[in-house]
Amino acid sequence: MAMKGNLVVGQSGGPTAVINNSLVGVVREALEREDSIDCVFGMLHGIRGVLREEMIDLRAESLDTLDSLRDTPSSALGTVRYKVTDDDYDRLIDVFKKYEIRYFFYIGGNDSMDTTFKIRHAAQEANYEMYAIGVPKTVDNDLALTDHCPGYGSAARFVAASIRNTGTDTWSMGESGPLKMMEIMGRNAGWLTAAAALAKTKPSEPPHLIYVPERGVSLEQIVEDVRRCYDEYGFCVAAVSEGLKDENGEDLVKQDGPMHVDAFGHAAKGPVVDYIAEIVGEAIGQRVRVDKPGYLQRSFAELQSPVDREEAYQVGREAVRAACDGKSGHMVTLIREPGTKYRCSMGLAPLDQVANAERMLPDEYMNEAGNFVTDAFVEYARPLIGGRLQARGRLQAVHWASTAKRA
Amino acid sequence: MAMKGNLVVGQSGGPTAVINNSLVGVVREALEREDSIDCVFGMLHGIRGVLREEMIDLRAESLDTLDSLRDTPSSALGTVRYKVTDDDYDRLIDVFKKYEIRYFFYIGGNDSMDTTFKIRHAAQEANYEMYAIGVPKTVDNDLALTDHCPGYGSAARFVAASIRNTGTDTWSMGESGPLKMMEIMGRNAGWLTAAAALAKTKPSEPPHLIYVPERGVSLEQIVEDVRRCYDEYGFCVAAVSEGLKDENGEDLVKQDGPMHVDAFGHAAKGPVVDYIAEIVGEAIGQRVRVDKPGYLQRSFAELQSPVDREEAYQVGREAVRAACDGKSGHMVTLIREPGTKYRCSMGLAPLDQVANAERMLPDEYMNEAGNFVTDAFVEYARPLIGGRLQARGRLQAVHWASTAKRA
Repeated sequence: MAMKGNLVVGQSGGPTAVINNSLVGVVREALEREDSIDCVFGMLHGIRGVLREEMIDLRAESLDTLDSLRDTPSSALGTVRYKVTDDDYDRLIDVFKKYEIRYFFYIGGNDSMDTTFKIRHAAQEANYEMYAIGVPKTVDNDLALTDHCPGYGSAARFVAASIRNTGTDTWSMGESGPLKMMEIMGRNAGWLTAAAALAKTKPSEPPHLIYVPERGVSLEQIVEDVRRCYDEYGFCVAAVSEGLKDENGEDLVKQDGPMHVDAFGHAAKGPVVDYIAEIVGEAIGQRVRVDKPGYLQRSFAELQSPVDREEAYQVGREAVRAACDGKSGHMVTLIREPGTKYRCSMGLAPLDQVANAERMLPDEYMNEAGNFVTDAFVEYARPLIGGRLQARGRLQAVHWASTAKRA
Repeated sequence: MAMKGNLVVGQSGGPTAVINNSLVGVVREALEREDSIDCVFGMLHGIRGVLREEMIDLRAESLDTLDSLRDTPSSALGTVRYKVTDDDYDRLIDVFKKYEIRYFFYIGGNDSMDTTFKIRHAAQEANYEMYAIGVPKTVDNDLALTDHCPGYGSAARFVAASIRNTGTDTWSMGESGPLKMMEIMGRNAGWLTAAAALAKTKPSEPPHLIYVPERGVSLEQIVEDVRRCYDEYGFCVAAVSEGLKDENGEDLVKQDGPMHVDAFGHAAKGPVVDYIAEIVGEAIGQRVRVDKPGYLQRSFAELQSPVDREEAYQVGREAVRAACDGKSGHMVTLIREPGTKYRCSMGLAPLDQVANAERMLPDEYMNEAGNFVTDAFVEYARPLIGGRLQARGRLQAVHWASTAKRA
């Protein structure tokens, strides 16, 4: 049994479409824990809200307001990208003491787990009893020791729906515009780009190609892949990570440093997918169109995954339960139960094993050529988007792959 | 009473999220017109399908298949960007005769109306009796003589929802990322960019700025506008047309020709919104993030406007009714009925008055400064997106404009 005191909860790093579900989960569980928890404070803009004593009383919010946040993307408390410095810890402990904070919850990704770990350490050093639990959140799905991360399923749903929509558009353009690339978030990890595959039900359908940072490819390989799909299906749609690397694991576009000249004699400039599209387009003799949905990927409320939404809520509640049981220095994890029906339970992982670790897309989730995911990935990811994408019709007499291209 | 014969229908130009509703409208009305219409052919990839005799029998499709197309974005028959040449007309008339085509329907924008007009003229010259009706479609909303164009309402709904989503994300980032621009389709007309305003319910909410091609602005003006909003609200989200011009109506970025150097001494390169974002970011000392949803704007099935969907269907049916009444050489139009409740009836406009005319956003729909729409525009556009956007919650203690920025 943990000691009685006040609670503070904050949101940090890039928001997601369901991150407020975790906030609401924390608050609602806290409201039911009057034996342990008095005040429920919300930090404005993450840890900076503590440093500045900008915190609000979340008990004063109505249950209707809290419920409405579950439909609302992005961090309702405001978020922050701020690395806590050595100078900050004394100040943080002072504020915790002043507000009698005994429960600390931070909803975020790798950096936020590191912050939580360090704050807990500082409290221990100061002999200040405080229970600190990390609540996982990231569309990148790159946190270690959890089956997946809340936020990922909804972003994955948006990406899959988007590639299906824009891919259908590309198909219908036929010879008038048969090539497209979509730039997808994830500078180091390819989980979200890989999710584009969930749009596909047969080989001729988009996406035809998927390129992730973990499996660098040469520009020559991309040109060859696109040409092959274009020849076979009459069009080609590729999902390309913003962080794609070349075959040596180096940046495809050297942004700084001297101008990079590729094997095609082009000087590299600008963002990676625009650059790839230009090279491929010139090589094939067809303009490659590019969609860059950017921050829509992590904020598109209309495409929340119901599974993701509920899990985000539950990890928030679980964090409070764990702290009230006296746990501290952990992150809540999702553990997939064995069996064919998707089911997750929750667990705890030590923060120091999670902090700053990045979980990459494993080898077995990409094919040998490094240009598409495997069935094992699809099996892993499909339940997370929370049900089928909106169905599409097709004229029976029109064949997906045959009408688009003509000699 | 028009003569009996076969019908052909095609889709042309950029697709929309609801263009198949017009196709289904044409087919379903035709199936009820056995007195006038025998076979119902669909051109594959527009007029090219006629030239190549690539047409399918749409009567063979089940009603279930047809209905499923109403949820399906992009042109189910395939589309084309092809300008019919003088050499093509003889061939077209030959194919019409061979297939006994007496009814010709073309679903498209300005260019497609021009094609329909010319094909009708060629048929008249050849003394071949054929009823040709244009069915309006364009997300650009730039067809003349109609209140609005099917396809626009759904694209507008997607744009408004997107700016609300990404704008909420920007707000929540606070000092860690307060500036954003979204690039919106419409190279000459600003209708779709203007629709971003439908996301807004009060001045502090995004979008804060809207820039359209009809009202060129200087880079200095944009910098000043963004700085003012950032100072006032702590963040700034702008909807920027891909076709934005400078204050003299010239391209902001000179893509061809010699390198353009702007008032800030920067050499212009790359797409217009990336360029503006770079200039503004440097001037203000904060990175400006850019979303470019691209073709998602015209293909996002999940955000069809119910009003748009139904109107797209009805203009298809109306086209067939008009032709069966012996009309030819017209485009179906939407006429907004007077009164506070939104209602449209349908009419006909001569194709030659529509063909190649572009209807721009009128002066009274933009404010004097050229950086936002007027209430008159909002009143015009609101009914077209078919109901409210998904509601958003907000913590009562968090103020939209006050928490984001601190000195």
